[in-house]
Amino acid sequence: MAPPSATLRRQLASLLVVRGSGHGRDSQRRYPRWELPNAELRRLLEQGVGGVILLGGSAEELRLRCEQLRRWAGQPLLLCADVEEGVGQRFEGASWLVPPLALGRLHGTEPGRAEQLAERYGRCTGRQARLLGLNWVLGPVCDVNNNPANPVINVRAWGDTVPAAAALAAAFVRGCQAEGVLACAKHFPGHGDTSTDSHLALPLIPHGRQRLEAVELPPFQAAIAAGVASVMTAHLQLPALDADYPATLSEPVLTGLLRRQLGFTGLVVTDALVMEAISAAYGPAEAAELAFQAGADLILMPADAEAALDGLQRAVEAGRISPERLQASLERRQRALAQGPGQASDMPLGTLLTQLEQLVSPQERQLGAELLALSLEHSGAAPLPPGPGVNLIRLDSQLNSPQLPARAPALLRPAAAGYQARLLDGHSPSPWSGDPQAPLALERLGEGPVLLQLLVRGNPFRGSAGGDEPWPAVLHQLLAAGRLAGLAVYGSPYLWQSLRPLLPPQLPAAYSPGQMPEAQALVLQRLGLEANALEGGFTD
Amino acid sequence: MAPPSATLRRQLASLLVVRGSGHGRDSQRRYPRWELPNAELRRLLEQGVGGVILLGGSAEELRLRCEQLRRWAGQPLLLCADVEEGVGQRFEGASWLVPPLALGRLHGTEPGRAEQLAERYGRCTGRQARLLGLNWVLGPVCDVNNNPANPVINVRAWGDTVPAAAALAAAFVRGCQAEGVLACAKHFPGHGDTSTDSHLALPLIPHGRQRLEAVELPPFQAAIAAGVASVMTAHLQLPALDADYPATLSEPVLTGLLRRQLGFTGLVVTDALVMEAISAAYGPAEAAELAFQAGADLILMPADAEAALDGLQRAVEAGRISPERLQASLERRQRALAQGPGQASDMPLGTLLTQLEQLVSPQERQLGAELLALSLEHSGAAPLPPGPGVNLIRLDSQLNSPQLPARAPALLRPAAAGYQARLLDGHSPSPWSGDPQAPLALERLGEGPVLLQLLVRGNPFRGSAGGDEPWPAVLHQLLAAGRLAGLAVYGSPYLWQSLRPLLPPQLPAAYSPGQMPEAQALVLQRLGLEANALEGGFTD
Repeated sequence: MAPPSATLRRQLASLLVVRGSGHGRDSQRRYPRWELPNAELRRLLEQGVGGVILLGGSAEELRLRCEQLRRWAGQPLLLCADVEEGVGQRFEGASWLVPPLALGRLHGTEPGRAEQLAERYGRCTGRQARLLGLNWVLGPVCDVNNNPANPVINVRAWGDTVPAAAALAAAFVRGCQAEGVLACAKHFPGHGDTSTDSHLALPLIPHGRQRLEAVELPPFQAAIAAGVASVMTAHLQLPALDADYPATLSEPVLTGLLRRQLGFTGLVVTDALVMEAISAAYGPAEAAELAFQAGADLILMPADAEAALDGLQRAVEAGRISPERLQASLERRQRALAQGPGQASDMPLGTLLTQLEQLVSPQERQLGAELLALSLEHSGAAPLPPGPGVNLIRLDSQLNSPQLPARAPALLRPAAAGYQARLLDGHSPSPWSGDPQAPLALERLGEGPVLLQLLVRGNPFRGSAGGDEPWPAVLHQLLAAGRLAGLAVYGSPYLWQSLRPLLPPQLPAAYSPGQMPEAQALVLQRLGLEANALEGGFTD
Repeated sequence: MAPPSATLRRQLASLLVVRGSGHGRDSQRRYPRWELPNAELRRLLEQGVGGVILLGGSAEELRLRCEQLRRWAGQPLLLCADVEEGVGQRFEGASWLVPPLALGRLHGTEPGRAEQLAERYGRCTGRQARLLGLNWVLGPVCDVNNNPANPVINVRAWGDTVPAAAALAAAFVRGCQAEGVLACAKHFPGHGDTSTDSHLALPLIPHGRQRLEAVELPPFQAAIAAGVASVMTAHLQLPALDADYPATLSEPVLTGLLRRQLGFTGLVVTDALVMEAISAAYGPAEAAELAFQAGADLILMPADAEAALDGLQRAVEAGRISPERLQASLERRQRALAQGPGQASDMPLGTLLTQLEQLVSPQERQLGAELLALSLEHSGAAPLPPGPGVNLIRLDSQLNSPQLPARAPALLRPAAAGYQARLLDGHSPSPWSGDPQAPLALERLGEGPVLLQLLVRGNPFRGSAGGDEPWPAVLHQLLAAGRLAGLAVYGSPYLWQSLRPLLPPQLPAAYSPGQMPEAQALVLQRLGLEANALEGGFTD
């Protein structure tokens, strides 16, 4: 028997996870298209919506925001964030660690050390998430990044080999959940081998079950064996498993493969249903119903929360979703909530301030430094030639860039050496000459030697970051003109690997998988640019 | 008799105001050169330093930060900020109002309405400051901006005429202090008539006492008559009053003119002693001692707090500063503190969250909208021609620009009309052709009509903002090419006044003294670009 309508709607609402800003005010939302305004968010929480995925804001703001959302809801909530690279990746002031793939690389030579570091990585992320009010970390990425052209997984993966991805994802789960915070293995059944971005279109994975069992599934199996509390679905077409539906909406994938074959008993959550891969083909009610019928417990970021609720309610009332099936999802959610801190707490302000002051522990600071040091690569001999020169920085966007605050070492250290910053992003006047042999219009940039700093992630030559920009030709051009002073690459190992062989052996060059100011400090140190008092330091 | 040394040092420390970040962590400081790291800030507060000037952070962060600083100090503090244009000018999420000069202009035609609005402006600033933990607003600017080439006062002034500046500054004081928050009349004896920026060098004001009494002093007298709690000194050379020392260090100015002639009995605070106008000529100990001897009660941002304390202590112990003089300053500080909220409060988190949710009242939101509407100027006929086109935006810096968050109307509305953003700042590849008749290298910017948006404050042709850029020639160039789609100016009325006569009457053009997203929305509305769902709205 289905419960009465009002109760049913409240139960279904608890299985929705909507998106909000970590900032307190509507005007501060970074992505207003997706982040609900406060009035709507509050109304949905009062109606029983059971989870919120948060983005944006500082550690302090997030701490207050989580408290506010729990008060609005009046019940325990699942509060989560995509903090795959430490809580500081999304919330300023917490630890922002180098991307997981750095440890995947280390695993090839020092598997034990890599696993131990991945577990500390998970502990750091879980502990800081808990202190700030989150009880659910949307990581680890369990995809094997075996396709360097992958525009969306890339350095987010824990490995480009199966053993690394499996061992390190499991280690992250152990660490995170030891702190009482739920982890989430994603994106099931494996998003590594695609060059399509599912934010834009539905990628197709042509592999059959045998290949999946050899490559894609082992990291998920390892995470499940480590007790991972949740698994997130992928928006991928896998014709060998389901001819009709993408994985997120596929019963053979979610119930057949994940629940029955892999024996997963925890929470299954969809990836964001608002993504084009789903929303271009399915309405919000249809997508929610199909996902739930396929085996998902939680519906993440429906394109329209009310419509998704309507769809689910109609499906239960019409018997297309059984009361038992609904009950099972509700119970899984309750079990998960019982594992983590979910209640609003009326702690005194003094206690809260002390907690915030202790947000980053000395051990976590040390972990961040160790990860940076082990993943640094460099060649050539410092220092750079003396300025005046040009500090040419390529980045995705200068607007509100967490990589490039005004005090970033990438700006301040070259400035102190006489190199004037020229920043290129998608909004810049063109720096290109139109000549493929000498693509940079150097006269638009300034005189003297050029320090080239590339902040590029994703695939540099086919993905979005870096676009089709001719960096190899630029290196040749600058070398031919005798104007290449040094090279710094932050982010993509594939870009670094493609450029490094083009450099003369003595030319100062360095790479870090991290793009944060601490990574810049370390890379530029290698290029002979010392710390600058204006940076303000990284300790507290 | 001087008190014993430890007591004396603690007393002197209470008269120092040092600078800290509104953010919680050292790594988040925007100006690490000036903002003390937490360890030093805490140590100084524990030693009795009595005030902090704060910059940076959101409303939520500032609220927690003020609480933290008071706990570190263990005594009531003076916590202040340069929130001349509303608390939101410095702390995201609070009200950010159009600059005062907008009301100065209104005062010429509607003095009563302008005064009433200035008082509400002061109330809004005072109330939000108090809710967030500040008890001292470093405003109003009492300088008469009678020199359009002034690079540092400009739109911050309440008037470019004496009656406007006097009446409106006094109204701001009444409003702010009615909320229990101290105001501060600055920069005594008047910083309006200079084209030198005292952050960089020491400006000279050649006027004698008679002229000062006619132009510079009346706004200060009006503020004093309104009961202003504090006056800030200017780093200006006034040879007619003091042949030796700048105003900040001048006994004839601070004691003779301000205390005796004008009868001011409140707190006298120096402008930041770290500014080049002072620090280039005087050491930190010398500057602090001279300022105190001249008549200042509080020493703001000494270049070195310990050295300033050493200097003051030596001066008292050697009898160059009398115990009575010290006692008088301590008593003035105590009296000021008694007027405002100065204690740490262990309120429950729920109360704090409710306060923060109610930070911007409906009346304050309405005030912001009214100020924007009355200061808008426009000409021509909307709409812009259809794109594809170029949205050329000039701003000081794209890095962490509060004017231009990723969701700014200045970006989103033209994008929706097919205009691609090209952003120019000091770090851009050059957009200039070198041809004075056609200065823009249009081929670097893109095809189609050009919407020109200039976010410029300070003096556009000689000051720093906008530099020597040839905007009149650019308008001629675009008009001659048939490519000028529209003009938006944000900030400087002088730039708008110089460009407006060059426009054909039908060309869509608009101006706001504000640069914030709300100002962009209003200006672009006039140019025919409607609200965009991606902006996220301005209500909460």
